[in-house]
Amino acid sequence: MGSPPSDFIMTSPESLDSKEFMHLNPQDFRGQAHKAVDFIADYYKNVETYPVLSQVQPGFLKNRLPKTPPNTPESFDTILQDVQTDIIPGITHWLSPNFFAYFPASVSSAAFIGEMLCTCFNAVGFNWLASPAATELEMVVMDWLAVMLQLPKTFMFSGSGGGVLQSSTSESTLCTLVAARDRVLDEIGIENIGRLVVYGSDQTHAMYKKVGKIAGIPPHNIRCIPTRMEDEFALSPYSLRKVIEADVEQGLVPLFLCVTVGTTSTTAIDPIKDLADVAKKYNIWVHVDGAYGGNACICPEYRPFLDGIEKVDSLSLSPHKWLLSYGECCCLWMKNPNLVVSALRTDPEYLKNKHSESDSVVSYKDWQVAGTARRFKSLRLWFLLRSYGVENLQNHIRSDVRMAIMFERLVKSDVRFEIVVPRRFALVCFRLKQFNGFDTSYTELLNKKLLERVNSTGRVYLTHTVAGGVYMLRFVVGATLTEEHHVINAWEVIKEMANTIVNEF
Amino acid sequence: MGSPPSDFIMTSPESLDSKEFMHLNPQDFRGQAHKAVDFIADYYKNVETYPVLSQVQPGFLKNRLPKTPPNTPESFDTILQDVQTDIIPGITHWLSPNFFAYFPASVSSAAFIGEMLCTCFNAVGFNWLASPAATELEMVVMDWLAVMLQLPKTFMFSGSGGGVLQSSTSESTLCTLVAARDRVLDEIGIENIGRLVVYGSDQTHAMYKKVGKIAGIPPHNIRCIPTRMEDEFALSPYSLRKVIEADVEQGLVPLFLCVTVGTTSTTAIDPIKDLADVAKKYNIWVHVDGAYGGNACICPEYRPFLDGIEKVDSLSLSPHKWLLSYGECCCLWMKNPNLVVSALRTDPEYLKNKHSESDSVVSYKDWQVAGTARRFKSLRLWFLLRSYGVENLQNHIRSDVRMAIMFERLVKSDVRFEIVVPRRFALVCFRLKQFNGFDTSYTELLNKKLLERVNSTGRVYLTHTVAGGVYMLRFVVGATLTEEHHVINAWEVIKEMANTIVNEF
Repeated sequence: MGSPPSDFIMTSPESLDSKEFMHLNPQDFRGQAHKAVDFIADYYKNVETYPVLSQVQPGFLKNRLPKTPPNTPESFDTILQDVQTDIIPGITHWLSPNFFAYFPASVSSAAFIGEMLCTCFNAVGFNWLASPAATELEMVVMDWLAVMLQLPKTFMFSGSGGGVLQSSTSESTLCTLVAARDRVLDEIGIENIGRLVVYGSDQTHAMYKKVGKIAGIPPHNIRCIPTRMEDEFALSPYSLRKVIEADVEQGLVPLFLCVTVGTTSTTAIDPIKDLADVAKKYNIWVHVDGAYGGNACICPEYRPFLDGIEKVDSLSLSPHKWLLSYGECCCLWMKNPNLVVSALRTDPEYLKNKHSESDSVVSYKDWQVAGTARRFKSLRLWFLLRSYGVENLQNHIRSDVRMAIMFERLVKSDVRFEIVVPRRFALVCFRLKQFNGFDTSYTELLNKKLLERVNSTGRVYLTHTVAGGVYMLRFVVGATLTEEHHVINAWEVIKEMANTIVNEF
Repeated sequence: MGSPPSDFIMTSPESLDSKEFMHLNPQDFRGQAHKAVDFIADYYKNVETYPVLSQVQPGFLKNRLPKTPPNTPESFDTILQDVQTDIIPGITHWLSPNFFAYFPASVSSAAFIGEMLCTCFNAVGFNWLASPAATELEMVVMDWLAVMLQLPKTFMFSGSGGGVLQSSTSESTLCTLVAARDRVLDEIGIENIGRLVVYGSDQTHAMYKKVGKIAGIPPHNIRCIPTRMEDEFALSPYSLRKVIEADVEQGLVPLFLCVTVGTTSTTAIDPIKDLADVAKKYNIWVHVDGAYGGNACICPEYRPFLDGIEKVDSLSLSPHKWLLSYGECCCLWMKNPNLVVSALRTDPEYLKNKHSESDSVVSYKDWQVAGTARRFKSLRLWFLLRSYGVENLQNHIRSDVRMAIMFERLVKSDVRFEIVVPRRFALVCFRLKQFNGFDTSYTELLNKKLLERVNSTGRVYLTHTVAGGVYMLRFVVGATLTEEHHVINAWEVIKEMANTIVNEF
């Protein structure tokens, strides 16, 4: 320390010519970016021809690439060619119309363009002045989406609440949990953090436990209340009340409830209104995780799943799943953003300005985990909402659901298969039936084998889950390029592989 | 609950035609994206002509845009035109060569192309199988950067450690803090969370306190040890030891130390080696925050600032600041990633596969806050490192430093001004001197006035800080398009405004 190489650089200034290598010559940029556009358009045209699940083995890329970076420049064309040769074979193609795994990561031309502009401006909108348009456009699109979801005014900037774009449901849940935690600890004292309890079901997304632990909630106070197949894996308000009562009896302090609209395993729907009625008796912060299912609620016919939303404190959903926005785009609305701000606020001198000091503007840095890092993501949603219009976005959801219904009917038409859990959105949970005389573990083995065979073809990719002790396959329609014939083809592959397995066993 | 609109959609299937609106018709995409490229190239060409600090007033955009989203599509050309008309006037142009505020958010054609491809593939690489190339390329580039920084093998995959791309320094610090916390709580019991203490200086980034609070560290146990102007605002190992000893005396448990290479206010450099020597006596996790300054350490002449790095547990730095990568790109290396994994690991059935089960591959979801959300950001760095080569990246740092030195000399050449803190990297901290007979507050007022005048011209943007009680202006060279004449011009604007102020007072 204390010995910086202060003026070393001036010893040979002539050797340094900043012109030698232009970082961002607009003309070079133009040429390279046009080439990249054609590369990407070709990828989108050809993606269907690639194995949807990458067929490489661990180490494939590490072993192909040098151990150290080059000292001198490589050409743009070489690198782009290497993307084709080295990278694409190692990609599991979420864009493929034959991708039916997990939940979708849906996309659109409109959001792509919005993302290009986000990258272009590279505005770091941590507070209003750092890029006023970034803050204000985010406020506008969050209110637009709130209108589409028929959220009460209490969640909107035009009312008494507000929304923010986060990278993930985890971040959204973490921010609200910390706000809830600090509100309660302000009353009962930070030394009581070990008495706080959070509530979810055994179907709540794994991030719920992770986020609870990050926030310092003792792992033994993170409740995962059992659900039942008979309830279609929804969290029962009765069970919730019983668990809370037992905790209160023990001197614990109920803090936070995570309600899910469309769980990851089976798209179960927790009943918001009845759960909130229970929770509110104990002053619990209620957060609704609509990461996947919430997107469908822009359609009036799905909106009933949000009934009771006026009773909760916060809601998040992820356009990066089912609203065509590309990755890391999660919406969070809160009734009282000030609670999050008071938990997460920072106020360093070097970020102060007359607007931030007057509290007349939103400083989004205080609505998120990051101190200042922040991209201008609202451009994606603005481009998307305007390019589609609300009606086409609703039709997009309905089109996926229609294809899922078609798949469901195909499954039902084959006596060897069964639907395990009623379909709610565009996820179909199914399996090879358990026939008389075969035990459970044998049926599970058959279904595992089926999944492995199907995925190893590279022609289709789907995944599995276990709920209520039952192993089942998950088939989700939602990849942007999927059309009816892809669904029909997927079913053909599944049937074909089922034939080979049934013959073997 | 329990009453989904199950087959409602089939009542009028004919009214829905998924072909009406193509989400991602490759031909439409190609046309729109080419237009966007030209728009962006023009922006880069013209950005210098815009006021660098947006001159709009709060509400400007909210008042221009409709309160609700459109029901039907608007044309691509209309929306792009609105970017020019509505958005650009509200942007503070971080890309402008006249941007000298905060720390830079530097960019490059290469990273732009990498980001386009990241968006294109939209691969959600939460575990290896979900996109093998996404996981492996990230491992490769993290090792490449480690080589460039001459990190010990203990931080590399090719050794016994490993690295990960995060969105922000906050996220990096949070993940390591939680790992450190859980390691200690496993020993002393979670009920002792209130005894944990974390250490930084009064110059440590504001995110440090925020992250500590998120992780459940009691705010009164978050130490911000005072620094002194005489020490150039570096954290003194002696002071650290005294504070730790006092805490231990009180029965508290020292947990975590955040060391900074290049603080935000004045780019102070905490002495890693000596601080780590103190911390390690108490088994404290030492994290080095090199968000800005760490980037310079790819140059051998700056590498001494990392001396002692072999003694610490983790290091983060942000290419989104000074390594041309665009936003939300922070690198985190750890000696023992397993500690982070064991703190953050989730293991839901629906993400299991034979590779994740065998623990033979990295599952990056367990190295981050998000449960599954994750973009293929390593493509940016891969494109960047190969397009530049190490030498040009070093020259890029040196070129910015050379321009900062030039500015520093200009300031020194004017008797009215003074350099307040010795320059370390490309930040110059300066002010109008305090002349005999004027008191401190008057000098501060003059400098505030100067800053306001300079920024209101829209010709230059710089910011301020206060350290050691002294209000000073910060001038950072680092915007990608900045050349020497922009620095000279900035100095002219500053002098001109200083003239008007001195005449007035």
